[in-house]
Amino acid sequence: MKTYQEMTREELLTLQQQLTAEYNDAKAKGLKLDMSRGKPAADQLDMFMGFMDTLNAESCMKTEAGMDVRNYGGLDGIPEAKKLIGDLMGVSADNVIVCGNSSLNIMYDTVSRSMTHGVMGSTPWCKLDKVKFLCPAPGYDRHFAVTQHFGIELITVPMTPQGPDMDMVEKLVTEDAAVKGIWCVPKYSNPQGYSYSDETVKRMAALKPAAEDFRIYWDNAYALHHLYDDKQDEILEILSECEKAGNPDMVYEFCSTSKISFPGSGIAAIISSKANLDAVRKSMTIQTIGYDKINQLRHVRYFKNADGVKAHMRKHADLIRPKFETVLNVLDRELSGLGIGEWTKPIGGYFISFDTCEGCAKAVVAKCKEAGVVLTGAGATYPYKQDPKDCNIRIAPTYPTKEEMEMAAELFALCVKLVTVEKMLVQA
Amino acid sequence: MKTYQEMTREELLTLQQQLTAEYNDAKAKGLKLDMSRGKPAADQLDMFMGFMDTLNAESCMKTEAGMDVRNYGGLDGIPEAKKLIGDLMGVSADNVIVCGNSSLNIMYDTVSRSMTHGVMGSTPWCKLDKVKFLCPAPGYDRHFAVTQHFGIELITVPMTPQGPDMDMVEKLVTEDAAVKGIWCVPKYSNPQGYSYSDETVKRMAALKPAAEDFRIYWDNAYALHHLYDDKQDEILEILSECEKAGNPDMVYEFCSTSKISFPGSGIAAIISSKANLDAVRKSMTIQTIGYDKINQLRHVRYFKNADGVKAHMRKHADLIRPKFETVLNVLDRELSGLGIGEWTKPIGGYFISFDTCEGCAKAVVAKCKEAGVVLTGAGATYPYKQDPKDCNIRIAPTYPTKEEMEMAAELFALCVKLVTVEKMLVQA
Repeated sequence: MKTYQEMTREELLTLQQQLTAEYNDAKAKGLKLDMSRGKPAADQLDMFMGFMDTLNAESCMKTEAGMDVRNYGGLDGIPEAKKLIGDLMGVSADNVIVCGNSSLNIMYDTVSRSMTHGVMGSTPWCKLDKVKFLCPAPGYDRHFAVTQHFGIELITVPMTPQGPDMDMVEKLVTEDAAVKGIWCVPKYSNPQGYSYSDETVKRMAALKPAAEDFRIYWDNAYALHHLYDDKQDEILEILSECEKAGNPDMVYEFCSTSKISFPGSGIAAIISSKANLDAVRKSMTIQTIGYDKINQLRHVRYFKNADGVKAHMRKHADLIRPKFETVLNVLDRELSGLGIGEWTKPIGGYFISFDTCEGCAKAVVAKCKEAGVVLTGAGATYPYKQDPKDCNIRIAPTYPTKEEMEMAAELFALCVKLVTVEKMLVQA
Repeated sequence: MKTYQEMTREELLTLQQQLTAEYNDAKAKGLKLDMSRGKPAADQLDMFMGFMDTLNAESCMKTEAGMDVRNYGGLDGIPEAKKLIGDLMGVSADNVIVCGNSSLNIMYDTVSRSMTHGVMGSTPWCKLDKVKFLCPAPGYDRHFAVTQHFGIELITVPMTPQGPDMDMVEKLVTEDAAVKGIWCVPKYSNPQGYSYSDETVKRMAALKPAAEDFRIYWDNAYALHHLYDDKQDEILEILSECEKAGNPDMVYEFCSTSKISFPGSGIAAIISSKANLDAVRKSMTIQTIGYDKINQLRHVRYFKNADGVKAHMRKHADLIRPKFETVLNVLDRELSGLGIGEWTKPIGGYFISFDTCEGCAKAVVAKCKEAGVVLTGAGATYPYKQDPKDCNIRIAPTYPTKEEMEMAAELFALCVKLVTVEKMLVQA
């Protein structure tokens, strides 16, 4: 098999004709598929409906310590929920505050609070001329959007299969006191599915920031989202690594059950040192009367313990693994050896990351859309939605059915081929 | 019966001896009662346990329009919940955004957003030298705390039985562009139980603020919290009044079901003009993936409609009315005609407001505490917790049982007498 680069102009022209015909046929099918969103599919939600019976009119509505979860009180979460999250994330319950349904909202609140009140006594960021955040990219668009929303300058740091380029991170964090944070998805990263190596975690924990109020925003969103029983990534626990490195207050970790129980009706948490959490609590007493403790209790009673969550996540894996494999098989079959794309083969998380040849991503997404397949907007995985090479596309395989996923992936592969040929012909 | 002011020094000394003996007896009982917090009692919560059966594993989890409430999406609330809140508050569903469990959190977010992003394009408040809020007092301590937390200057405006002193409000709002808001609990106010007169609402709606980004923070927390069927306050609907007065964007209204369904597990909403809500939504898309739609659906399915909520609130009234009446009877029996205190007789809401003679409130609260009865801290109802006359005390009758409430009220009355006598003797 020839790569596209090895083909003559005539061969490319013939190929273009043939691909265009295929594309027109595909378009005629009138597909309506969505590979854009990291949403659970209906079967994942159906599988969890027993959760709705967890609490009923006869249930005891008290915690073990006797707190009535129906009433006010318990600002920072019920003890049982703190323990469950702590056990899952490998930290003490004392390092956990359980909040509402959205970890993104906790992250937003954390940045917002830093803007108006600073971090543990530091100057409020809104009083500073310049605040910067490091954004390993490709990364999660909603992270970048939060900091952009507050006028914070986003600095792209390249991702590698071991995590962010740590030479660059160390240099920027050590030399520039305007750098106040870094967004991390350390395990099964969005969108590549990479997990930080031990060395990356240790170097991260040992950073010597110029800014005393620098914090690592450690969004461990996919900590439990393995696809396989026999091959799983594990990363080092960041709080204890920071403590060992003499930086006990340098990290905020975030997690939620949004992709474990029900999206939007899960529980979310912030995990950090006592000093950091005390500062958060001080602000929380002003901010809210507390979060939904009934829903916290519902989660604890349903899952019982960390093992209960892990067993449940294996059922999730059984449902979504075939979809990942379908996409990967199609990409392999249709695109490997052609020199026109590279993609990750994650063993966990919610996404596959695809890199086209330079300058093709936007055109591929547009072509897919024209034929009825919606992808995440090209560029979304980069700060300011600007992918400097216009090559990265995030594929979200969970929401459609396996059959839909196969059709969508085939169309995607076809579009990658067609766009690449067209681009080569124009450039030649 | 003589007032204390008409007594001779000898009579006061005798009275002091007698009251001190009574107080020592009371102390010996070792009471442990709490009149401090606006919390529903266990019987109110028990009465609502049917709510826990509303949704179960067999339930249809879709809205009428077909949205799966278990999944992501529906950022600003499910249509049915918007309609329910709209019907209850007398506005269109289009003027409603349904959020999470805490209206206080919505208010906090609204102030916080104004600090960092301004209001519909105005200068962010954190960039201004001075921002001021009007605080009708006695009022709700958590309102004042939110604005104080952000370094906003709190200006006390006296409350009257018709609402805030509108002459003062008009003058301050019209003349000072630093005045960006006013906190209002317009119906069955916290702590006095006063409801704004039609004239007050109309003057509020017709304000001509110096600041374009001035907003009325209309916390309609007790809109449905009548104590009686046959005597109820109703206030004018503020959105339409503002619109009529040519100020369509001047008000944010807040409400929640915290004291209707379960505190902490209710639903809360912000009600405003389309222009204001669009600005809120723009920020919400960055802030969160959305709120708990399952809990929204649970509320809609349980209550069915506005009449369902109102019927439910009559059951609440039946439970808490006797407690209010118990307190009022004790105060009447023990204190009326003595010239040592005045109190409100609310027909709705969650509180009774008591005014001691000048300079006695802190001492009364301390004496009650010494004998095992906890009251809201004196001063809490004023900005910066500073009651200039040290006379206002908030009584929250809902949480203890009727019997406990009677004992607590008796001790309270005794402490008012004793403290007043002691003060008069020192001053004489």
